[in-house]
Amino acid sequence: MPKEIERKFLLVNDSWREHVSQAVNLRDGLIAFEGGRKVRIRFYNERATLTVKGPRQGITRDEFEYEIPHSDGLAMLDAHCPSGVMEKTRYHVPYGGFEWIVDEYRGILDGIILAEVELPSEDIDFPKPPWAGQEVTGQPEYRQINMLRKRQEALAQAS
Amino acid sequence: MPKEIERKFLLVNDSWREHVSQAVNLRDGLIAFEGGRKVRIRFYNERATLTVKGPRQGITRDEFEYEIPHSDGLAMLDAHCPSGVMEKTRYHVPYGGFEWIVDEYRGILDGIILAEVELPSEDIDFPKPPWAGQEVTGQPEYRQINMLRKRQEALAQAS
Repeated sequence: MPKEIERKFLLVNDSWREHVSQAVNLRDGLIAFEGGRKVRIRFYNERATLTVKGPRQGITRDEFEYEIPHSDGLAMLDAHCPSGVMEKTRYHVPYGGFEWIVDEYRGILDGIILAEVELPSEDIDFPKPPWAGQEVTGQPEYRQINMLRKRQEALAQAS
Repeated sequence: MPKEIERKFLLVNDSWREHVSQAVNLRDGLIAFEGGRKVRIRFYNERATLTVKGPRQGITRDEFEYEIPHSDGLAMLDAHCPSGVMEKTRYHVPYGGFEWIVDEYRGILDGIILAEVELPSEDIDFPKPPWAGQEVTGQPEYRQINMLRKRQEALAQAS
């Protein structure tokens, strides 16, 4: 079964930008979120996918992702993602033999930047890059869905 | 965009069994249900699919279905469908140029039989087979999720 094992960090500076191997524009839409299970549409540049994620168990969660026709992805993003579209640029930044990703949000979460490293197992050691700061793995306030809700509340209060 | 347009009927007798063109064993698991949107795993015999359905609008709803690897389907059915597995035999019964389906439930919904006709548009006329009785399209008590909840409540009260 496919698993996602990730640890998440804040950034202390911008020096990671010199080491980017690849950048991808992501557009995400949430179809459903129930009992910790999440179903989303994601565009990787123009490639559309449908993803099911299981509930988190520690830092691990099941993940099933399938490529779908571009037009289906657009139709679902448009009609079946009521919380709107989340946009970010995902930078791939190799460090010490591990693949780090740095997500720079746009749109409603503009200004937020977070780094993650994807791990082959939960207990593996990995070197921490100089640009990675405090670890925030599992902290609810750094989950995308909570960041989004917080911004939406702030916008609603300001308006 | 794919659409599902269906009308649902009770059965008045068993004479449809003489006209079955095809029978398929279905196993369904619900991954998420939020805001009228539904995400489910379905096995058609051994073929696994992941389906997103939009909210109903009248008798129409968007439907997006993708074939997925058998092992992924089993894993999701096992770990990410907390309301359990719904089993039924689906009989295809052609009548008057239309494709009817008759669903005979097993397991927790044992004994329930319902017929549906899938239509190319909402306002089309179609002949009603002699074995089809009262129309129950859109009646909440004949939606699978509500039938399931009712049986589960009855079982919980009986135990």
